[in-house]
Amino acid sequence: MFELAELKNRVSKAAYVDALPDLRSRLLELQLQVEAAGIPVIVLLAGVDAAGKGDLVHVLNEWLDPRYMRTTAYGEPSDEERERPAHWRYWLALPERGRIGLHIVAWYGPPMADRLYERIGNAALDAELTRINRFEKALTEDGALVVKFWLHLSKKQQRRRIDKLEENPETRWRVTDVDRKHLKLYDRFIAVAERTLRETSTPDAPWLILNGYDAQYRRLTVAHHLIDRLASRLSAHAAAPALPTAVPRSATETSLLGSLDLSQRLERETYQKEKARLQGLISQLTRRLRAEKRSSILLFEGWDAAGKGGVIRRITPALDARNYRVIPIAAPTDEEKSHHYLWRFWRHLPRAGKVTIYDRSWYGRVLVERVEGFATAQEWMRAYTEINDFEEDLTDRGIVLLKFWLHISKEEQHRRFEERKLTAYKRFKITEEDYRNREKWGEYEAAVDEMVTRTSTEFAPWYLIPANDKYHARIEVLRLICAAYEKALK
Amino acid sequence: MFELAELKNRVSKAAYVDALPDLRSRLLELQLQVEAAGIPVIVLLAGVDAAGKGDLVHVLNEWLDPRYMRTTAYGEPSDEERERPAHWRYWLALPERGRIGLHIVAWYGPPMADRLYERIGNAALDAELTRINRFEKALTEDGALVVKFWLHLSKKQQRRRIDKLEENPETRWRVTDVDRKHLKLYDRFIAVAERTLRETSTPDAPWLILNGYDAQYRRLTVAHHLIDRLASRLSAHAAAPALPTAVPRSATETSLLGSLDLSQRLERETYQKEKARLQGLISQLTRRLRAEKRSSILLFEGWDAAGKGGVIRRITPALDARNYRVIPIAAPTDEEKSHHYLWRFWRHLPRAGKVTIYDRSWYGRVLVERVEGFATAQEWMRAYTEINDFEEDLTDRGIVLLKFWLHISKEEQHRRFEERKLTAYKRFKITEEDYRNREKWGEYEAAVDEMVTRTSTEFAPWYLIPANDKYHARIEVLRLICAAYEKALK
Repeated sequence: MFELAELKNRVSKAAYVDALPDLRSRLLELQLQVEAAGIPVIVLLAGVDAAGKGDLVHVLNEWLDPRYMRTTAYGEPSDEERERPAHWRYWLALPERGRIGLHIVAWYGPPMADRLYERIGNAALDAELTRINRFEKALTEDGALVVKFWLHLSKKQQRRRIDKLEENPETRWRVTDVDRKHLKLYDRFIAVAERTLRETSTPDAPWLILNGYDAQYRRLTVAHHLIDRLASRLSAHAAAPALPTAVPRSATETSLLGSLDLSQRLERETYQKEKARLQGLISQLTRRLRAEKRSSILLFEGWDAAGKGGVIRRITPALDARNYRVIPIAAPTDEEKSHHYLWRFWRHLPRAGKVTIYDRSWYGRVLVERVEGFATAQEWMRAYTEINDFEEDLTDRGIVLLKFWLHISKEEQHRRFEERKLTAYKRFKITEEDYRNREKWGEYEAAVDEMVTRTSTEFAPWYLIPANDKYHARIEVLRLICAAYEKALK
Repeated sequence: MFELAELKNRVSKAAYVDALPDLRSRLLELQLQVEAAGIPVIVLLAGVDAAGKGDLVHVLNEWLDPRYMRTTAYGEPSDEERERPAHWRYWLALPERGRIGLHIVAWYGPPMADRLYERIGNAALDAELTRINRFEKALTEDGALVVKFWLHLSKKQQRRRIDKLEENPETRWRVTDVDRKHLKLYDRFIAVAERTLRETSTPDAPWLILNGYDAQYRRLTVAHHLIDRLASRLSAHAAAPALPTAVPRSATETSLLGSLDLSQRLERETYQKEKARLQGLISQLTRRLRAEKRSSILLFEGWDAAGKGGVIRRITPALDARNYRVIPIAAPTDEEKSHHYLWRFWRHLPRAGKVTIYDRSWYGRVLVERVEGFATAQEWMRAYTEINDFEEDLTDRGIVLLKFWLHISKEEQHRRFEERKLTAYKRFKITEEDYRNREKWGEYEAAVDEMVTRTSTEFAPWYLIPANDKYHARIEVLRLICAAYEKALK
């Protein structure tokens, strides 16, 4: 893999100075076009130690307009970061649409280091690399350009570079103990790098491997490649409008929601007793979960007026106010709009030991955005996989994730709308839109069917709750929460 | 202070049920008006243990529309939080304009606990309370409504409440060791509370002290008070447009900038030698600062084309890419616009040990926003104090803060604009606006004079750098940075 990159490459100072002005103009021009086209650009720099990553950070910051770019290097994770899935900090650092994010080593760092120091084996490394591929795929499918540079040095070149840095008193500090240690580990590191690059060089996010020994060569090569990738991404942007995708329709007439038994009822007295008992249990269980630093996410979807708020208000009294947060999903802010749609959910992930309750959620992508046409067919179809990957990241981190759909009949919804109009402080909840949404009942029903089919997984199953009777629905939800918490604590 | 709040107050269940529907309607109505008027509302709940804070969180979340409100309770600070000024997490949790933020104990917690456990004396407590007053003042002057509730219980009532909670197996968990400990500390706690409430009951953010023993009384009192405060804030909003304020003009003809000697020059050779020496020194000093977890902020203001970017690019090669960030200040995002103008600067404060370089800064408020009329006279005049307070928070936390104004003559600026047009990759830097800004040179000069006069403080002085000669300016800045770092490390 590194055969070509071992070869000595040299560009004379004169040739460099000659080529530079044009390249800089071209880079700036492309940066402006990228900004105008709203394409997020992720440039990733990695490679062997002392191969010139720092120098490239410096010149790229000089060549490009720094107002539209940002460099991120990652140190040891903070406790806030350690308490979330490993990719959390990478998600948060992603550039907005139209901006360039320069990321140093980034998501490749921890898995490669873990393998190098034999904290993990090849199977675990491969699992991490698959996760990285999914991550980069989600970004490129969302329109991002991902450009990855691997700076290589031969063993001899690396030794020579480090010696040189050490000779000069002004650069000696740059050589760390880790560098010297890595020099000894060169062969093993290269083996890990080869496996990593092989597994993560995908059609949409390929690696460019180059020799980093000669500064002029390194800089010009990176500039040329970046220009090529930016230009071809921009022409693809201009040429190809998103193609409409055929949507697979269910062949059957039956629906998952239609199969639910909505006649289930619970007496008020039983309800009150069960509620008190289950709330007590939840309060005990969440305290134990908190002590074990286990988070949980309770997610509620359902028809308008299905009683999501009512259920949530029966859960929260059992929780410590410092320990939970209810997140009602409203329209995204402009910062959120200028990222991948999952970004805002990553953003609000709780620290360890917390309970987060979502009143509506990331499933809006495959429900309202699908039915109302706010997302293209490609976007919402892609979302099933992205959501499954996201939820796997959460549950892998030990987060207990429960997803509830509260189901009521169309008639029951109508009855509740009318009832709300009679209570002054509930009237604000009813809008014209609620009535309009009823016209698309069938389309929503199909969307729910597909959502459950595609995203009810072993690690994050859906619970469909018959909710024509509020007492029944609430107890059902409280019971399922207790069961899941008890299982998690085993 | 608590005499009135010791008195038993009781509201019958019947009276409560009778009053509630109207109060809830009124609260929702006012919440919608607050949202429409874009007023941020900060409701703060504090008081003695077991006085019903949790119950109030619960009912307020039930009464108000949760989509426009958010509850925040604060646990032990994370390491990310500990590495910033103490108020950082409170700034970040502030509600957006039009939203209601319900804050539990919040910024009152740590100073009161520190005093209670005698980690600090009264003088240090008072200093913290002054800081709180400045914080709340910045918020109310920015248009926020701050409503603070103190829930009191007599010693006997507190004991009775805790006993009651302990009797019931379902509420026993709510009584913590801390509660039992506080019961013993009741008298001392009340003394600290009295001092705190006395010092922080300001005209704009007064405390409402109420007895929390009876749930019905407590809930109705809070609802009534909240309604009153919301209504009066809304009527003030409708009635009083911001009054134009007379701006004090400098009586003299001389200006600070005019007094600088712009003829200072440096030979290229001396420059190169000095630059290398100082960069080496900076790299050593920043590594030592990092080891001591000391952050620094380097802030650059100056005329267009004064060479801010050039200076910054002479600093960054001396820094470790993982350890610094350059923040160019562009237009605020909508999330930023919907907060106090300092919010976005709080938001990006670095973790401990980092170097943050601002290319333009919070001083935009008293420079471009003043001259171009983007901020009202009241707003930018208030900003001097707010900025001084902000910078004191930073330097108190041990952050080294250096502020540079790069000064060039009007003629030199013109020469540089023309020169830039000749270099292809610098052309993008020149816009029509740059030429328009030249017409307001005098106004900007007056604004700089006033800025330096009002914000050059002992803890954060301004450095005015003659920059007609780039070599001279760069070396001057590098030298001042070294001097400040050396002083900080002593």
